Amino acid sequence: MKPLILVTNDDGITSKGISVLIEVVKTLGDVFVVAPDSPNSGMGHAITVDSTIHIKKSKIFKDIEAYECSGTPADCVKLAKHHFLRGRKIDLVVSGINHGMNASVSVLYSGTMSAAVEASIEGIPAIGFSLNDFRYDADFRHVKRYLKRIVEKSLKNGVPPHIALNVNFPAKSDKPIKGIKICRQTNGYWREEFDARTDLYGRPYFWMGGDFVNREPESEDTDIWAMENNYVAIVPVQYDRTAYPEIKSLKKWKL
Amino acid sequence: MKPLILVTNDDGITSKGISVLIEVVKTLGDVFVVAPDSPNSGMGHAITVDSTIHIKKSKIFKDIEAYECSGTPADCVKLAKHHFLRGRKIDLVVSGINHGMNASVSVLYSGTMSAAVEASIEGIPAIGFSLNDFRYDADFRHVKRYLKRIVEKSLKNGVPPHIALNVNFPAKSDKPIKGIKICRQTNGYWREEFDARTDLYGRPYFWMGGDFVNREPESEDTDIWAMENNYVAIVPVQYDRTAYPEIKSLKKWKL
Repeated sequence: MKPLILVTNDDGITSKGISVLIEVVKTLGDVFVVAPDSPNSGMGHAITVDSTIHIKKSKIFKDIEAYECSGTPADCVKLAKHHFLRGRKIDLVVSGINHGMNASVSVLYSGTMSAAVEASIEGIPAIGFSLNDFRYDADFRHVKRYLKRIVEKSLKNGVPPHIALNVNFPAKSDKPIKGIKICRQTNGYWREEFDARTDLYGRPYFWMGGDFVNREPESEDTDIWAMENNYVAIVPVQYDRTAYPEIKSLKKWKL
Repeated sequence: MKPLILVTNDDGITSKGISVLIEVVKTLGDVFVVAPDSPNSGMGHAITVDSTIHIKKSKIFKDIEAYECSGTPADCVKLAKHHFLRGRKIDLVVSGINHGMNASVSVLYSGTMSAAVEASIEGIPAIGFSLNDFRYDADFRHVKRYLKRIVEKSLKNGVPPHIALNVNFPAKSDKPIKGIKICRQTNGYWREEFDARTDLYGRPYFWMGGDFVNREPESEDTDIWAMENNYVAIVPVQYDRTAYPEIKSLKKWKL
């Protein structure tokens, strides 16, 4: 029996990235799609608790059962597992391919990775894929063989329990991809610039912009270094957020 | 000079929890408020990247400079640091008090904690506070002295760099709070139930419900155990999501 692969993303069901992902994984298993009906970039691990979730059957992918959902990427995974595929074993959740990188702290803001992490909480093997090119018509051709290899190996070896893989592909360039590197999350942050404007009625509003600051640009074991040096970066991501070394230091506060 | 304390939350600027938080921390420093203009429960670490952010000056808190913001809790922290308080040193960010607990995996879905984590990424000491009672008119009186003690100690000792504290208070009950426990994040998950309904036009929609499943109810070092046994639970939370032990196991895949 072929493995059951659930596909989702955060750029929405009509994005190019998800169609490339489906094109690759449908050669490896039975594909079922539940994806947001509109862009959910920067959605993080949001879930819909205070309002209703709406779904529609989608005919967008030939011969593949697909639903578009008004909820977030994490909602899509929950709805797939507990409603559409209730009682069936999902062998793998794949999310993406995101238009834009999700390395370093972007893993926290990423709807793509939050869908994968949501699956890992449920005990389902999961991988989030992102390309370091946020353009609508980004070129994904150079990543297909790497994506296929990672999915094949994940189905064969099993993603470690309660872990989601964060895969970041370099953007298409003149230089070929050098290979795949297992990395850790880069220590960095986004330095925001708020562009203050005034609307037609004199009221202030803002656009959030900014650039990424790498606190450790020389560290060759990090995901940003790998991506910038034309490797595919893979970081194993956990949902236990405890900073274990600090438990001891806080106990000394004698609260 | 008094410390500068930035206050935010995810239930919105009109909620009871944020007014209790302000009431306590204004005795310990100069308070500045940037909070969402509407409820943001379950917002996780979402940020507003594809649309505009709107703000309004609020007169809701007497003698305290406050702004309400159309963005997410994480947006509020970014906007405060990079716009309103640009160039000033923020000594502490406090977020909450959330109506509802944010222990175990709820830390991932929580807007309250994401605001605190956002601050920690920026290198600002930060604490998120939550009460295990989601009611609109929840009783916060029993937690004030513990909240004050935690903020005082944090200002004095310094929260460890790049760590946010996740503080969960037990709901008001007949039993007094026994004390404060430093904990780790409980291994658990939310088991969802989707309630499928039909709208007035025959279209399907869902409400997400569910209950929390504790995978380790006997572990006395976890935040859920502490909270359920009438302790205030504090977990130090980090934003490095790397599952370090799995780097070695993935390298064996020879990708």
